[in-house]
Amino acid sequence: MSGDRLQEMVERIRKFRDERDWMKFHDPKNLSVSIAIEAAELLEHFQWKDDKGVMEHVDRHRDEIADEIADVAMYLTELADNLGIDLIAAMEAKLEKNAQKYPVAKAKGVATKYDKL
Amino acid sequence: MSGDRLQEMVERIRKFRDERDWMKFHDPKNLSVSIAIEAAELLEHFQWKDDKGVMEHVDRHRDEIADEIADVAMYLTELADNLGIDLIAAMEAKLEKNAQKYPVAKAKGVATKYDKL
Amino acid sequence: MSGDRLQEMVERIRKFRDERDWMKFHDPKNLSVSIAIEAAELLEHFQWKDDKGVMEHVDRHRDEIADEIADVAMYLTELADNLGIDLIAAMEAKLEKNAQKYPVAKAKGVATKYDKL
Amino acid sequence: MSGDRLQEMVERIRKFRDERDWMKFHDPKNLSVSIAIEAAELLEHFQWKDDKGVMEHVDRHRDEIADEIADVAMYLTELADNLGIDLIAAMEAKLEKNAQKYPVAKAKGVATKYDKL
Repeated sequence: MSGDRLQEMVERIRKFRDERDWMKFHDPKNLSVSIAIEAAELLEHFQWKDDKGVMEHVDRHRDEIADEIADVAMYLTELADNLGIDLIAAMEAKLEKNAQKYPVAKAKGVATKYDKL
Repeated sequence: MSGDRLQEMVERIRKFRDERDWMKFHDPKNLSVSIAIEAAELLEHFQWKDDKGVMEHVDRHRDEIADEIADVAMYLTELADNLGIDLIAAMEAKLEKNAQKYPVAKAKGVATKYDKL
Repeated sequence: MSGDRLQEMVERIRKFRDERDWMKFHDPKNLSVSIAIEAAELLEHFQWKDDKGVMEHVDRHRDEIADEIADVAMYLTELADNLGIDLIAAMEAKLEKNAQKYPVAKAKGVATKYDKL
Repeated sequence: MSGDRLQEMVERIRKFRDERDWMKFHDPKNLSVSIAIEAAELLEHFQWKDDKGVMEHVDRHRDEIADEIADVAMYLTELADNLGIDLIAAMEAKLEKNAQKYPVAKAKGVATKYDKL
């Protein structure tokens, strides 16, 4: 038992895939296509909805939303694993870059954060 | 120190966001929009490429790909956290459902796995 | 001169592609990948924005938005053409189906239109 | 009768929407979200498939693919119309830009066309 739940999940995903002999389909392009498709299915939960509608939908459909989040997360976790990328280390490195790009003093509360500060 | 690297990352993401007062932008619809946008940026790495081109691109651009994977992962992790969803538990639940839906005996090596078995 | 501006555009797109010998990259999967990527670039214009922010952005960036709309439209037009699909006829057929699916009496003003009427 | 089939379609789309009082949902952000969702449904037709699988799928599912293309096209046409953008003129302008960016002499047959020529 590693105590690292994400690493245990990586191993379960590998096993699930290999039992089905699916590695041959799971090249980086196909996995990225599937991540984009699942991301759109997640987004579909909020299609046409305003703030109030989003919150009502979340209350009534939390499990379905969790399933869509999980679909994106599983393909993403597998893609990182297949490319030899440590997912947590990649997030740490990107968070460092974002901290440089969006210093607190300039970014605080700014809606156009991803345009031009 | 929890030994749980993903949970530590959740806490870093919360801190990063709150220092910048960005929670007001991070409702589930906006986060899902951002997940879809970042998923497309990841996919863009493989646009127009055949198998050989994908592999060559991976070799030369691993860090940029890791950054795009991290962008999707961070928004996804935050969305799960904001909705009170344990990301690993959601993945475990979905993997169980997938195991029911795609039993090894029927799914093994089948390309049309997500059409109709 | 056909008087049909979309058909003239189809012919210009074909010529542009063939002068560059790009047909070999433009199979239906690659074109669909590119449509999804360009759709995300269009969506990026509205990332994080509320209603007021969207309208202000539209006023200041109409030409850039028009470019992103055009990118999606060109790949979509080419994909239809490559598949022998008349784009306008396909829209007419889908509009008929939608009229059946969303009769005015039930769909009028309903926000959840694409959930369950 | 204008002889312009796309313009006639614009008018049919407006009528369809207004009979249902749906303009209030069809702001540019929501339409762009829907374009991205429909683009992913189109892409889903080609998920996991290799070249041969794509072609076989096209032969058996042309009408369903035409429906997905039409869904993207209708939202895109409406978005352009709502923003006062002439869709064909936008495509012409973008094709001009692309001709500058990808001159035949440099772009001919190059797979990495959208990376760096």
